[in-house]
Amino acid sequence: MTSEFAFIDALIARVRAHEGVVRGIGDDGAIVRFAAGEECVISTDTLVAGVHFPLDAAPADIGYKCAAVNLSDLAAMGATPRFCTLALTMPSLDPGYVDPLLAGLFALLDSHQVALIGGDTTRGPMSLTLTAIGSVPAGSALRRDGARAGDAVYVSGTLGDAAAALALRGMRSGSYDGERNLARTRLQQRLARPTPRVALGLALRGIATACIDVSDGLAADLGHICRASGLAAVLEADALPASRALLTLIEVPAQRLTLQLGGDDYELCFSVPAQLEDQLAAIASATHLPLTRIGALGPGDGVHFLDSEGRLMTPPSAGFEHFR
Amino acid sequence: MTSEFAFIDALIARVRAHEGVVRGIGDDGAIVRFAAGEECVISTDTLVAGVHFPLDAAPADIGYKCAAVNLSDLAAMGATPRFCTLALTMPSLDPGYVDPLLAGLFALLDSHQVALIGGDTTRGPMSLTLTAIGSVPAGSALRRDGARAGDAVYVSGTLGDAAAALALRGMRSGSYDGERNLARTRLQQRLARPTPRVALGLALRGIATACIDVSDGLAADLGHICRASGLAAVLEADALPASRALLTLIEVPAQRLTLQLGGDDYELCFSVPAQLEDQLAAIASATHLPLTRIGALGPGDGVHFLDSEGRLMTPPSAGFEHFR
Repeated sequence: MTSEFAFIDALIARVRAHEGVVRGIGDDGAIVRFAAGEECVISTDTLVAGVHFPLDAAPADIGYKCAAVNLSDLAAMGATPRFCTLALTMPSLDPGYVDPLLAGLFALLDSHQVALIGGDTTRGPMSLTLTAIGSVPAGSALRRDGARAGDAVYVSGTLGDAAAALALRGMRSGSYDGERNLARTRLQQRLARPTPRVALGLALRGIATACIDVSDGLAADLGHICRASGLAAVLEADALPASRALLTLIEVPAQRLTLQLGGDDYELCFSVPAQLEDQLAAIASATHLPLTRIGALGPGDGVHFLDSEGRLMTPPSAGFEHFR
Repeated sequence: MTSEFAFIDALIARVRAHEGVVRGIGDDGAIVRFAAGEECVISTDTLVAGVHFPLDAAPADIGYKCAAVNLSDLAAMGATPRFCTLALTMPSLDPGYVDPLLAGLFALLDSHQVALIGGDTTRGPMSLTLTAIGSVPAGSALRRDGARAGDAVYVSGTLGDAAAALALRGMRSGSYDGERNLARTRLQQRLARPTPRVALGLALRGIATACIDVSDGLAADLGHICRASGLAAVLEADALPASRALLTLIEVPAQRLTLQLGGDDYELCFSVPAQLEDQLAAIASATHLPLTRIGALGPGDGVHFLDSEGRLMTPPSAGFEHFR
């Protein structure tokens, strides 16, 4: 597969029929249709080789993650993922690389019935930009600016696995026993193939007052909700949920906390008014996801942490920012 | 400006209010609203440094062109440009570079009332991916697959300026007189800041049966219409329109033809049934654009050229393709 057009033909062959796609790949633009009363939610994320994934990452994982981080943004908006475009820049179109990349990409897109409707293929240093388009009933999207003083702060799943996988990457695993090796594999899986919490995002419409996905790190991401809503967050460090794998491999609590604030987990962090908290148990059960209360919002600004004795403490990490 | 968040704040400050934007930059995704009965047209294009523009290109031109090539795709669909997202990958956020880049980008976006609603900022080798979103009344988009045998083939404006600018770039201009220097500047301008034919695309709804923008080269692009519509095109080489600047600088007709097929002009090439051709004069007048009949469509496949004596000839160039 050396030709751009042959690549596009292979892509078209891979695309299923999807409702709402009037015209997909193969024109100057794609044409999509929404139901009346729906709003359209749009999210764009770029993955750059050597920055967002190691140069030797498995291409199937790259394809998967590129879709996952965008669907995670739509999940954080409470939107149903519908369509996406892919801008793929690569030094060459080697089928040994491109085929598994597309397989990983479509594995996630197909499982969420998301239609790939177009994009661009260019030669250059490897990067992927995916733009995902979802829909929500008008006025029902989960935004960052709707939190109110007194709301509880929740997070889905567990935090720290992805950062732990990154931290452990350089270390030898030779002396590990079976349980520790299994835990390590589990962490790597969480880093390579994060699960966008789409069903949770949909279930939180009408319940969460604000929502964000944890990509840059809990403090940075919740900080966006605080800034947009004009509030301060106070979190209990000990309340942050950790996976069994993380507990197995990282035994020092302070080290674990650093990793739990490291980002790249793609869990949802959201605020809920006290009178709606009792609805979360049913949602946790329906989505097979633990939902953990980690703190509350109040007047002020910034994200603050309390230690096990309720004293304010300095968090050990500030998450990830580009261009720092 | 060394911080990603400071860059985004600067971007937000630069964005005007736009109708239809429920939530723009500053959340996990943007929320936009369309009128009932509208379809949404989506186009994605990437510009990579060293591939789509020289490494020393003026940043304002890069920003402008990135918007122009996407709006050109929407124009070729007959869509009204509405919203866009920008994925910007750069080695660093140097304000001396980023500020003019944004100025060039917004110069075009603002002139078409297009809202920048989100995107992504990442560190890496320089590239820009813009995803543009437009709207058309349901069913009225200009597609590639609607041409019919007997339709005339038209092209807007003139062809060859951008390719000539590229070809002349390596040559010294010392001995040129005033008129030739002016012509050269005009060609460079056409390459650096192509004009998306948005008003023309809108005017062609209900008149053109198929439409495409000339980016890869006339033969390649019209070839897409032929393939999608199941037809052959026969063009008169002498009919291809040339600018005064091109005629001034390139005096050998065969050289001129090579350049006219070189691509990057972002003119619209479209098919029109005979009974509607008399409406084109009014459109040409309203859009201040020459519309030139360059051939016709018939049974068969491929794009074919006739010389001045009506004999089939081999065209001198096949346009641009990535990964060749």
